[in-house]
Amino acid sequence: MSALNEGWFTEVFQDQGTAFSLKVKKKLHEEQTEYQKLEIYETETFGNLMVLDGCVMLTGRDNFLYHEMMTHPALFTHRSPRKVVVVGGGDCGTLREVLKHPDIEEAWQVEIDERVTRMSEKYFPELCESNEDPRANFFFGDGIQWIRDADPDSIDLIIIDSTDPVGPAEGLFALDFYRDCMLALREGGIIVQQSESPLLHAETIIKDIHTDMKKAGLDHVVTLPFPQPVYPTGWWSCTMASKENPLHYFREEDAAERPFVTRYYNEAIHNAALAQPQFMRDIFED
Amino acid sequence: MSALNEGWFTEVFQDQGTAFSLKVKKKLHEEQTEYQKLEIYETETFGNLMVLDGCVMLTGRDNFLYHEMMTHPALFTHRSPRKVVVVGGGDCGTLREVLKHPDIEEAWQVEIDERVTRMSEKYFPELCESNEDPRANFFFGDGIQWIRDADPDSIDLIIIDSTDPVGPAEGLFALDFYRDCMLALREGGIIVQQSESPLLHAETIIKDIHTDMKKAGLDHVVTLPFPQPVYPTGWWSCTMASKENPLHYFREEDAAERPFVTRYYNEAIHNAALAQPQFMRDIFED
Repeated sequence: MSALNEGWFTEVFQDQGTAFSLKVKKKLHEEQTEYQKLEIYETETFGNLMVLDGCVMLTGRDNFLYHEMMTHPALFTHRSPRKVVVVGGGDCGTLREVLKHPDIEEAWQVEIDERVTRMSEKYFPELCESNEDPRANFFFGDGIQWIRDADPDSIDLIIIDSTDPVGPAEGLFALDFYRDCMLALREGGIIVQQSESPLLHAETIIKDIHTDMKKAGLDHVVTLPFPQPVYPTGWWSCTMASKENPLHYFREEDAAERPFVTRYYNEAIHNAALAQPQFMRDIFED
Repeated sequence: MSALNEGWFTEVFQDQGTAFSLKVKKKLHEEQTEYQKLEIYETETFGNLMVLDGCVMLTGRDNFLYHEMMTHPALFTHRSPRKVVVVGGGDCGTLREVLKHPDIEEAWQVEIDERVTRMSEKYFPELCESNEDPRANFFFGDGIQWIRDADPDSIDLIIIDSTDPVGPAEGLFALDFYRDCMLALREGGIIVQQSESPLLHAETIIKDIHTDMKKAGLDHVVTLPFPQPVYPTGWWSCTMASKENPLHYFREEDAAERPFVTRYYNEAIHNAALAQPQFMRDIFED
């Protein structure tokens, strides 16, 4: 059930009735951390692969899609982001994208499992190339508690870069957590959260995120779809929410003239990601 | 190698080092047609599944993405489409979307394998619901020859809805074919072709399509990415080309007020699909 054959890594989505497989050259690492089973493989065609508790987290080949979309749309929507907190994101790829923005003064990665970061440093060094940046700060522990303990009105952007909303990450998809985020955010602050597959989860997880974020007082909520080949359906999303900012505000010129390299994101893709497929309009723009 | 286990249909993309599997309830049909092996399965979660020569063609659940994007962007880019020809498209889903446009006077489906259409009528009746429309015309035979024999300046839109550019469909991804299309198109005419995965094929198949279409005299060429979960990487594209029309021309008001139901396409998605990911900009907008 967990292998197509020898030489393949397969993730079976039992409840979705689908499976996705990558051809592997070899297993590079396996350990049971305090929180989860962590595996690293070298694949034939997708670079290195990180797996947590049997779920594909990222590959070297296509993580740029996810990491760029979890960061740049929110950073160019905020009028003047200075302090950013990544909750989760232990592979450091989100942190790296955040630190590409020269105006960021302070960035935190708050990851529960330090082993994910240590193994990312070893097997995904390109994602960790900003870890020595003097603006980068690391805390290994509970992100929910960290946000609860944060100074009020102290953060411009909270990026919730977590695993699926089951097990340890469940509390990151919850009204109480969004309320704590609200208190920690400065005026003009934004939250962005990975929010699963538009095809599979629009009427369940994504809808619940919208409902809870609005209950928490985040009046503006929008879901941005993007491609992500190694996740179920190959189609993923993040959901962005703000206290005051209409989310169609966009520092478009800054994005067009960004002083760093991207592979997916640009100012046209930013606007494109805000476009809602008709079935999502029907659900969210009643 | 071709099965994850009993109870699954698996397509292995050997050269991509990936595989995709759908859980199946049962096989509904199997035959060797004159052209290919045709299988139909009932899946657990994706509706019915059509497979040609081992390759997933479509499922009941997600074909709306492909069929809407192969048709509506081109139809709302053309200033006044009247006559449309679908080359391939034997499942009739593209034809159905075309005939949703009330201004279309005549539509042809030119499919080499009549058995695909017959089995689609049986197992995908929803895709065939416009087959009795008096504007619908069917020819079963060689699409390359059909286009070569078409009257000059007689067609407004040619939709190349084919399998991958290997085997029978290879001649549909070719300079000679595009030249014949050019002759068959009326002034203002447009071609749209399914053009594989942006992640996998931007620098190979998609680039070759651009080059050959331009050589054939189609000066305006643009690739539109869209999600398609059951195809490799879950991310697919069509490429649209015209003789004279700049392809950013868009009957946006007509699209917004379209008198028919869509599930993915709308006027915002149309504009979004024209946005080029940065790596595609780097390749195509030198």
